[in-house]
Amino acid sequence: MKVVTLLTDFGDFYPGVMKGVILGICPNARIVDITHSVERQNVYQGAFLLYHSYRYFLNAVHVAVVDPGVGTDRKALILECRDHVFIGPDNGILIPSAKENGIERVWVIDEVKASKVTGTLSSTFHGRDVFAPSAGYACLGRIEEIAEPYDGKLVEIELYDYEVKENDVRCRVIFVDRFGNAITNLKGEEVRGAKGFYVHDVYVPLVRNYSDVKEGEPLALIGSFDTLEFSVRNGSFAERFGVRSGTLKFEIVR
Amino acid sequence: MKVVTLLTDFGDFYPGVMKGVILGICPNARIVDITHSVERQNVYQGAFLLYHSYRYFLNAVHVAVVDPGVGTDRKALILECRDHVFIGPDNGILIPSAKENGIERVWVIDEVKASKVTGTLSSTFHGRDVFAPSAGYACLGRIEEIAEPYDGKLVEIELYDYEVKENDVRCRVIFVDRFGNAITNLKGEEVRGAKGFYVHDVYVPLVRNYSDVKEGEPLALIGSFDTLEFSVRNGSFAERFGVRSGTLKFEIVR
Amino acid sequence: MKVVTLLTDFGDFYPGVMKGVILGICPNARIVDITHSVERQNVYQGAFLLYHSYRYFLNAVHVAVVDPGVGTDRKALILECRDHVFIGPDNGILIPSAKENGIERVWVIDEVKASKVTGTLSSTFHGRDVFAPSAGYACLGRIEEIAEPYDGKLVEIELYDYEVKENDVRCRVIFVDRFGNAITNLKGEEVRGAKGFYVHDVYVPLVRNYSDVKEGEPLALIGSFDTLEFSVRNGSFAERFGVRSGTLKFEIVR
Repeated sequence: MKVVTLLTDFGDFYPGVMKGVILGICPNARIVDITHSVERQNVYQGAFLLYHSYRYFLNAVHVAVVDPGVGTDRKALILECRDHVFIGPDNGILIPSAKENGIERVWVIDEVKASKVTGTLSSTFHGRDVFAPSAGYACLGRIEEIAEPYDGKLVEIELYDYEVKENDVRCRVIFVDRFGNAITNLKGEEVRGAKGFYVHDVYVPLVRNYSDVKEGEPLALIGSFDTLEFSVRNGSFAERFGVRSGTLKFEIVR
Repeated sequence: MKVVTLLTDFGDFYPGVMKGVILGICPNARIVDITHSVERQNVYQGAFLLYHSYRYFLNAVHVAVVDPGVGTDRKALILECRDHVFIGPDNGILIPSAKENGIERVWVIDEVKASKVTGTLSSTFHGRDVFAPSAGYACLGRIEEIAEPYDGKLVEIELYDYEVKENDVRCRVIFVDRFGNAITNLKGEEVRGAKGFYVHDVYVPLVRNYSDVKEGEPLALIGSFDTLEFSVRNGSFAERFGVRSGTLKFEIVR
Repeated sequence: MKVVTLLTDFGDFYPGVMKGVILGICPNARIVDITHSVERQNVYQGAFLLYHSYRYFLNAVHVAVVDPGVGTDRKALILECRDHVFIGPDNGILIPSAKENGIERVWVIDEVKASKVTGTLSSTFHGRDVFAPSAGYACLGRIEEIAEPYDGKLVEIELYDYEVKENDVRCRVIFVDRFGNAITNLKGEEVRGAKGFYVHDVYVPLVRNYSDVKEGEPLALIGSFDTLEFSVRNGSFAERFGVRSGTLKFEIVR
């Protein structure tokens, strides 16, 4: 039995087809959806969510496909790491996770060989024709049948690319969750001991729990990603402050 | 092999992480999503949906996390029942299901012990750090390693808390489904033999099937929860009547 | 182990209950969601998506429930085919797939027998009471316990019901995916060698890859269904051109 996780920006329908392909090769695969709602072509968001989910699996094959370059000559990668195998396009999405886990072998998928499984190599749906077959073969430990070793340079992504100058912060809102919480990429260690923040001229206290403020009031805390999150208790920070994924600037109050 | 069901208001992404934690402890767990779209912090809705889904499983571990009190001192429970195990916060969400199935043993989760699995006890994501590990241990039959027996009072919820006075009904719309059907908590037995209802001054006949009225016309029937549902044939009752989850008043026509 | 796929217009919650029923009968079933977001009662769309997903499974039991006739006397079918078993209402949704795979035996489900599993035969949720039990029995190879052989006429659907007259095309947009791509049912072979199209007076070139046009520009290509798809590179064709599922007319430029 092998666990395969899927993380894409495909939305509905397409992931089900990928599962058919994987199970056709490796009937024992246990497939887990991480998300299929990554913002369209937001490679950074995909990389962040992969980074903060792969670690909760013991060892697994992780397929991450946010792939603006599908159909171009961007490479399709398999990164064999210490405990995990990461599969996806060469656009950085796999890198933070793979590096942390320890890359042991880099492969480039032979798209023609991989797509023999589905019998077609579409120009738009490599999730089905390239990445799902590769996941199946990775589960079987037969990567060499659909990929070649590679020692070239890989596209990189840096997750924690924020700037803190004195008390001025420029970081990213990585995503806004269903509760309207704005999850940033600012590491919690940067604000340890701070009292709060000025966000768009509104003071937001740094607290430990939602219950430390009244209903409807804004708050910040170190969230489950170990980064700073902005919330409104029983409300939506994103709506109240007009925030969505992208750059966020604010000031630390110490 | 053990079936684990998940019911939360987490939306996307977070449930995938919970699955990694559960499979890390119990690789044979068969995980089934009931829903992750419970209305934010609507404990009552979660309780109702759990109650009307658990019974279709033979015996399973059911994790239900709608948890406005996360990070406070509300207890985290494991209720061992006759056929099923229910896991979730002590806010009533588990109670109607657990009572019906027959509670045999009540446990309070030791959050510190449980969170050793993920190595962190966040203040916001007990689904990952507390409830998922507990589900894993419950699958293995090793609850005593992460929980203590408990004989205190539990928070209760009453699902069928409607009032019928003569022909005046005050009940709840529990949720509105994708078809715009308004599912109430009024037991079908209360309206057996009725001709119809006045809802917001509009007459809505009680029928057996959608096909008993014309396209676009409203109707009421005893739905798959054995409660009264309001619909529009090939339309949306919720939109037409401006109804959403919450209190609904109407009059029975006998 | 048997793979069961689910394709419905049920949205959230209801599919989870179906899984409980299936696993209760056949604990080894491996259940895969194809989609639960078929447009409400859009049988044609359901048929198309089933047709383009079943083939990526080796052999499986496919449950497809888009069922405007639920609660009427429409038949509930099990179609045993060469490699696959298809289960759903007799409204054509199964036909294109079953015919292609090769129908070997037609069964009509005995709704009373099938619904003994859940103990109830609701008039609205045959997914739970009729189709899910049937899928469970099909997994066990015990169809004859809940269904009767049938040699009557079945409701048919034709997927590729487009018209091409000289260069004037009338086809269907089957669905609009998350990227705003408009997937049509026009077979790629009909436009092989064409230069492009006039859609609503706008010229749209036929290309091989998204990257063949500039960001924000419209394009057409033969997509992963082997049919014509209209897109905007890194944009939404559906929004830009006000297109949704239904009839689409355009002109071929050769």
